[in-house]
Amino acid sequence: MTDTNFSQSSSSIGLNISRVGAEEKLQGKALFANDVVLKNALCLKALRSELPHAVIESIEVQRAINSPGCVAVFTGRDIPGKNRYGLINKDQPLLADTKVRFVGDPVALVAAVSEDAAQTALSKIKVEYKELAAVFDPEEALAPGAPLIHEKGNLLGKRLIKKGVPDLAFQKADIVIERKYQTTFVEHAYLEPDAGAAFVDQSGRITIYASTQNPHYDQVDVAKLLGLPENMVRIIQTATGGGFGSKLDINTQGFLGLAAYLLKRPVKMTYSREEAFLCTSKRHPLKIVYKSAANKDGRLLAIDVKIIGDTGAYASYGLAVVTRSAVHATGPYEVPNVHVESVFAYTNNSIAGAMRGFGVPQMAFAHESQMDLLAEALAVSPLEIRARNILRLGSTTATKQTLTASVGIGACIEAIAPHYEQIKKSIELTKTKNLRGVGLGCMMYGIGNTGVQNPSTAQVELQPDGTITLFSGAADIGQGSSTVLTQIAATELGLDSNKIDLVTADTGMTTSAGATSASRQTYISGNAVLDAVSKLKEMLLTEAATMLRTGRASLTLKNGRIENISNNALFVTLEQVVRKAVTEGIPLKWQGFFDPDTTPLDPDTGEGNPYATFAFAAQLAEIEIDVLTGEVTVTKVVAAHDVGKAINPDCVKGQIYGGVAMGLGFALMEEFAPGKTVSLKDYHVPTFSDMPDVHAIIVEDAEPTGPYGAKGVGEPALIPTAPAILNAIADALGSRIYFLPANLERIMKAIHSGTSKPLKIKLMV
Amino acid sequence: MTDTNFSQSSSSIGLNISRVGAEEKLQGKALFANDVVLKNALCLKALRSELPHAVIESIEVQRAINSPGCVAVFTGRDIPGKNRYGLINKDQPLLADTKVRFVGDPVALVAAVSEDAAQTALSKIKVEYKELAAVFDPEEALAPGAPLIHEKGNLLGKRLIKKGVPDLAFQKADIVIERKYQTTFVEHAYLEPDAGAAFVDQSGRITIYASTQNPHYDQVDVAKLLGLPENMVRIIQTATGGGFGSKLDINTQGFLGLAAYLLKRPVKMTYSREEAFLCTSKRHPLKIVYKSAANKDGRLLAIDVKIIGDTGAYASYGLAVVTRSAVHATGPYEVPNVHVESVFAYTNNSIAGAMRGFGVPQMAFAHESQMDLLAEALAVSPLEIRARNILRLGSTTATKQTLTASVGIGACIEAIAPHYEQIKKSIELTKTKNLRGVGLGCMMYGIGNTGVQNPSTAQVELQPDGTITLFSGAADIGQGSSTVLTQIAATELGLDSNKIDLVTADTGMTTSAGATSASRQTYISGNAVLDAVSKLKEMLLTEAATMLRTGRASLTLKNGRIENISNNALFVTLEQVVRKAVTEGIPLKWQGFFDPDTTPLDPDTGEGNPYATFAFAAQLAEIEIDVLTGEVTVTKVVAAHDVGKAINPDCVKGQIYGGVAMGLGFALMEEFAPGKTVSLKDYHVPTFSDMPDVHAIIVEDAEPTGPYGAKGVGEPALIPTAPAILNAIADALGSRIYFLPANLERIMKAIHSGTSKPLKIKLMV
Repeated sequence: MTDTNFSQSSSSIGLNISRVGAEEKLQGKALFANDVVLKNALCLKALRSELPHAVIESIEVQRAINSPGCVAVFTGRDIPGKNRYGLINKDQPLLADTKVRFVGDPVALVAAVSEDAAQTALSKIKVEYKELAAVFDPEEALAPGAPLIHEKGNLLGKRLIKKGVPDLAFQKADIVIERKYQTTFVEHAYLEPDAGAAFVDQSGRITIYASTQNPHYDQVDVAKLLGLPENMVRIIQTATGGGFGSKLDINTQGFLGLAAYLLKRPVKMTYSREEAFLCTSKRHPLKIVYKSAANKDGRLLAIDVKIIGDTGAYASYGLAVVTRSAVHATGPYEVPNVHVESVFAYTNNSIAGAMRGFGVPQMAFAHESQMDLLAEALAVSPLEIRARNILRLGSTTATKQTLTASVGIGACIEAIAPHYEQIKKSIELTKTKNLRGVGLGCMMYGIGNTGVQNPSTAQVELQPDGTITLFSGAADIGQGSSTVLTQIAATELGLDSNKIDLVTADTGMTTSAGATSASRQTYISGNAVLDAVSKLKEMLLTEAATMLRTGRASLTLKNGRIENISNNALFVTLEQVVRKAVTEGIPLKWQGFFDPDTTPLDPDTGEGNPYATFAFAAQLAEIEIDVLTGEVTVTKVVAAHDVGKAINPDCVKGQIYGGVAMGLGFALMEEFAPGKTVSLKDYHVPTFSDMPDVHAIIVEDAEPTGPYGAKGVGEPALIPTAPAILNAIADALGSRIYFLPANLERIMKAIHSGTSKPLKIKLMV
Repeated sequence: MTDTNFSQSSSSIGLNISRVGAEEKLQGKALFANDVVLKNALCLKALRSELPHAVIESIEVQRAINSPGCVAVFTGRDIPGKNRYGLINKDQPLLADTKVRFVGDPVALVAAVSEDAAQTALSKIKVEYKELAAVFDPEEALAPGAPLIHEKGNLLGKRLIKKGVPDLAFQKADIVIERKYQTTFVEHAYLEPDAGAAFVDQSGRITIYASTQNPHYDQVDVAKLLGLPENMVRIIQTATGGGFGSKLDINTQGFLGLAAYLLKRPVKMTYSREEAFLCTSKRHPLKIVYKSAANKDGRLLAIDVKIIGDTGAYASYGLAVVTRSAVHATGPYEVPNVHVESVFAYTNNSIAGAMRGFGVPQMAFAHESQMDLLAEALAVSPLEIRARNILRLGSTTATKQTLTASVGIGACIEAIAPHYEQIKKSIELTKTKNLRGVGLGCMMYGIGNTGVQNPSTAQVELQPDGTITLFSGAADIGQGSSTVLTQIAATELGLDSNKIDLVTADTGMTTSAGATSASRQTYISGNAVLDAVSKLKEMLLTEAATMLRTGRASLTLKNGRIENISNNALFVTLEQVVRKAVTEGIPLKWQGFFDPDTTPLDPDTGEGNPYATFAFAAQLAEIEIDVLTGEVTVTKVVAAHDVGKAINPDCVKGQIYGGVAMGLGFALMEEFAPGKTVSLKDYHVPTFSDMPDVHAIIVEDAEPTGPYGAKGVGEPALIPTAPAILNAIADALGSRIYFLPANLERIMKAIHSGTSKPLKIKLMV
C-alpha cells in the first residue's frame, strides 16, 4: 500500500474513540441495576448478624411473615441447592445455617411489597444466638486453641516461593534491611452500592439483572445455590458504577435468585451504603516482614518475606491473594535468591476478597520502602538503586520465569527520571513553610489469573443487514473493555468503531469471557475477539475474492466493503457477502478463544510461569506536609506505565487517573474497621480537592502475544501510587511510616517521635 | 431402535403442540403494532383523495403547519428517494405527486403531537384538483380512447397458456359448455387495521415496528423511498392480527419511515377501519368466460378461458394474479388441450393485490361450476365427473408440468365421497320447508411463487448456555409458521419444541424468509430450517462422537443430550458441546437455505414447471335456502385437504376452519364497492353464527421434497368453499348463480327468474 492515509483510516488502534456507553452515562440514560423496574417487584432485605461469632439457636419468623406487606421470610433451611458459594473456596452460606461468623453475616431474607414493609418485617424476626469467642487477628487465629471459625480450621492457604539459596545470600550480603509493614482493611467504595432485580419467565428460567464484574461466574454459583442446571439462570450485567473487585463476589445475586425462584415473582434488592460497607469483600490487611539483602553496589542479593493475611470470615478470592502477594514480593526487580511465605487465616472480621491489585499494592508498599531504605543506607539515589536491579529481557522472576519480551520497567523509570530530578532540585532550592518531598514507586503486575486456566471466548457475527455484532461475556464496569474490544474488532474489519454493535456480559447471549479482574480483559478477551474477527475476516476475503474473481491478497477491508487495494471501484459490500453466504450456508457467526500460555506454580517452590505477560510502571509523587496538622498534600504524580500498546490512550489515562486517586486514598486516609465502619462519613475517600496534578506517560513496549501488542493497566494504575507517596513522606520527614494509611495521626507521630525503629540493620560497608 | 416410545418421544411432527404465541394472545399480552409505545411519538395521518382521478394543481399546507400541535406536513415533493413502490411493479407513489388515481390515494401526510391535532391539521390542507375522466371497468380501461391512468398505458399484464390444439378438440367434442363468471372486489377485513411505529436511533438507523407479512420486502421499499442503503432501515414485525395478503404491501411503513427519517422523532400511525377499507389492497374482481369441452364419457377434452382482471389504480401484487389465475384455470383436472388468456387492466378503482389464493378462488368458482354443468348435462354424478378427470401421478398440467409425486386430489375426493352420498340421500329422503342442497368444490394450488426464484433462509444457533435459538425471517401472521418451524427444528435436534427460542421477522436479526404468502412458509422456510438444523445436528454428532470416543452412527439427539442409542448413560449435553466448541472455534450458528425447483413460464405458451409441489383439496357444502328471504345457511362443510404431511394437525385444521369462514363470506356476502365501502356495517363478514359444522379431513400424500413431506394449506383452505357452496345452491335451486357473492338479492333473483341463460350449449349425445 502506498497511500498512507488510506491505510491509517481503517485502524482505530491508538485513537481516542469515545468510550462505549459514555454518552448514556453522561445523559443519565444508562440503566444501572437499581434503575431496572420490574412491575410489582417485591423488595428484598437481609437480616444481618450483629455478632461476630455465634451459634444460631433459633430463628422465629412467624411474626415477621404476619406483618403487613410481608410476602415471605427465608432462612438457610429454604435454600434448595447447596448453601455454600465462593469464588474459589465454596465456604460461604447465602443465609447462615448453623452459625454467624462476622458482623453482617446474613441470617434471614425478607420479601415484602415495599421497602418499609420489608424493614418492618426485618424488625420482627427474632434470632436467639449463643455467642462464641471471636478472633480478629490472623496470627491469633492460627495459634493453638484459637476459636474455630470453619470446621476445616482457620488456615485459608499458604504459598511458598523459593529460588536460589537465600540463607547463604543473606550471610554473604554487604547490607541487610528488615522491616515490618502493615496495611488495614480497605473498602472499595464504588459509587453504586450492589443492586439487582430478577424474575422467572414462563419456562421457569430465572433472569437476574445485576451490577457485576462476573456474570458467568454468578450464573454458576446461583445455579448451585438453587440446585438448578446452569442454563436455568441467566445473568445480565447492568451498567455498573464501579466494582474494583468486590463485584466479583455474588452479593445481591444469590438473594435475588432465591426469592425469585421460590416465589415466582419479580424481586429487587439494593444494598444500603451501610450494607455495602458491612457485608461486601474488602482489601486484605497484610502484615509483611520484609528482609532484603544487597551487596555494596546496591545489587539485590536476596529477599526473605513473611506475609500474614487476614481473609476475614470467608475466603472470597482470598486464595488468589495468598499466591499473588507472594509471587509479586520481589516487585519489578531481579532477585537471585528468594524465600517468601504467605499465610492467610480466617478471622471473625469482614470478608476480604479481591480489590484492585490482589495483594500487590500492599507488597509494593513494602518492596518500594525497602528499595528506598537500601538506597539511603548505600547513599545512592532512589532512581539508581532501582535502575541497578530492574528486570530486563532475559531476567528471571522469583518463580524462575524468564522474561523474553515486553519488559518496560526500565523505560518507565527513564520516563519519570527527569521529573524526579527536577522536583528534587526544586525542593532543595526552595524553602517553604511546609515540608516537601518526592518519592518513587515501581511495580510489576502479572496479567491474568495466576498459573491457572484463564480463558476468554468471543463471537462476532455478520448480521443479515450487513452490520457487525460483537458478542463478549466481558463485563465493562467502567474501565473501558467494551471500547477496547470494539476498537479491536473494528480495526480488523476495516470499519469505524461505531459500526460495531456490541452485546456483552449476558449469560444468555454471550459465552464466558472470564471475570473482569486481574487486568485481563484487554489482553485475554482482546485476543479472543481478535481470534473471532480474524475468522470472519478470512471468510469475507475468501468470498469477496470469488465474487470479484480476483486473488485474496489483492483485497482489503475498508468502510464496510471488501475492495481491491489498488482500485477501490472494485468492491463488494458486507451485505452482498451476506446474501451469498446465506444461500451457500457459509457461517456468519464466528468463535474466538484465547487462554494465556501459563504453567501452574509448583506447590513447594512456587516455580512456574504463572503469567503470559507482565505490566510495569513507575510513578513519582511530590508532596507537602503541613507540620502543624500532619496533613499531606500530594501536589503532583508522574505516572509512567508500560501497557504494551495503548489501544485507546484516553482510556489508559483514565485508568491511571483513577488508579492514582485510589492509591492516594490507600496511602493517606482509607482504613476500614470491620463491623464498625458503615458510612462515607466514617470512611474518607479522596475527593477532587485531594487530587494532585497527574502527568500520565504511556510506555509501549509491545507484548508480542497481545492484541496489537497490548497488555493491561487496570490494577497497575493503582499499585505504585501509595509507595511513591510513602517514600515522598519519608523524603520530607526524614522518618518513615510502616503502617498504611499514613493518616494524620501517624504523620504527627512520625513528626514528633521519629521513625519506627528498624528491626535489624546490618551494614558492612 | 427397539423401543418405539423412545423413538416417538423425540419427534413433535404430527403433534398438536400449542401454537407459539397463543398464550400471549389469549392473555392480552401480545404486542400488536398499535400497542408499541414510543415516548413522545408523533401521530401520523394521511390526507386522501376523494376523487378517483384528478390532476393535483396545488397543495397548500401552511395553514395546517400553523395549526396547534402540528409538527410537519409532507407531500410527494418531500420524499428523499424514488417516490414509487410496489411488490412487483414500482408504480405507486407514497404521496401523490402529479395526480391521484383512486378514492383514497394519499396526497399529504401530517405529523402532530396528538390524534386530534393531526386531524385538525388535515382539515386545513387545501388541495386544488383538476378532475379527470375516470374508468371503473377493466374492459373499458383497455378500449381505445379510455382515460389514461398510468403513462405506460392501462394494461397491467397478460398471460397466455397454450397446450395441445384446443380448436380441434372443441370441434371434436361431444359437449361444449361456455359460461361467464364474475366476482367482485373483496376486502381482507383482518381484525387489526394496519399500524406501526418508528424511531431513528443515534446511528441514524430507522427502526419500524409494523403489522406486516413481509418485513424484508418492506425494508427494501422503505429504503428506496428514502434513498437510503437497506441496512439503515430495520423492520420488526409485531404480533399481526391477520393479513391474508393485504399486509404484503407497505401500508403504514412508508409513511412511518418518511416521517421518522425527516423529523428524527418517534412516530406512530394506525389506520382507521375506514382507511383500511379505502386504501389497502383488495381481491381482484375477475370476469371469466370459461368454455369446456368433453366427450360423452365425461372426459375433459379442452378448455378455453378468457380472464379479465381489474387491478385498480396500482399494480400491487396484480401481476402475480394475472399469471396464477391463468395457470390454475384447469383446476385439479388433466386437460389435454388448453387455451387461457388472462388480461388485467388498471382502472380508477381501489387497488387490488394479493388476497389468500391470488386469483385461484375466483377460478375455482368457474371451473367447479363448469364441472357440475358437465355432470348435469351428461347425467353423471358430480363425484364421478371429477373422478374421471382428476390429476394423477404422471399427469401433465396446463403448463406441461408432469406430476411425479404427492397428487392427493383423488384421495381427497374419496375422503368426502361417503359424506356427499349420505347427505345427498338425506336430502332426497327428507322434506323440509327450506330448499336443501349439497355441492362439491375441488382445487389444486401451486405452493410458492409462480416460476420465479423464491428462496427462504434460516439460522439456528446453539447458545452459550446450551439452549437453541432459531432465526427465521418468516412473519407469522396468525397462520402458525412459527409453530411449524419450531416443531421442525425441535424434532431434528431431539428437543421438546418449547426448548427452542425463536426469533422471527426482524430484518436486523434474521435473514429473509421471503413473504408470508403463496402458502409457502411450511414448505420453503420449513426446508430452510431443516437445512440449517441438519448442519448443527451434524456438528453435534461429530463433536459428541469425539467426546464419547465412539462412532457417530451410534449416537442420537434426545432431550438436550447427544447419547448412545443403546446406552443412554453414555451422553454429552448440549452445554458440554458448547464448551468444547467455543475453545476450538467451531461455529455454533448455522445457515439454512431452500429455493424450490421451478422453471419460469414461457411468455408465449406458459410452458414451464412453475411450482415444485401442489396442494389439493375437495370440500363439500351442505346448505339450506329460505325461499322467502333468500337466506342461505351453510349447515355443514366437509373439507379434505392433501397437505403432504400435517406437521401440526390442529394448526392445519385451524387454517381449514378459517378458510371455510372466508370462503363462505366470498360465496354469500362479501362485496366491496371501491370508494364507497368504508365500514363493517356496509361490509358483512361471516360471524360465528354463520359458521357451519366443519369436518376437516387431513390427507397426507407425502411430498418427497417437503419437510417431513409437508406442502401447505394456508390458501387451499379457502379455495374450494365458495365453489362447493355455489354448487350446493345450484343443487337446491335447480338454477345457477354466476356472480359472486350469491347474496340475498341474487338468490331471490335466481329463485324467481331461474338461472341466467347459458351462452352456448352444444350437445351431440
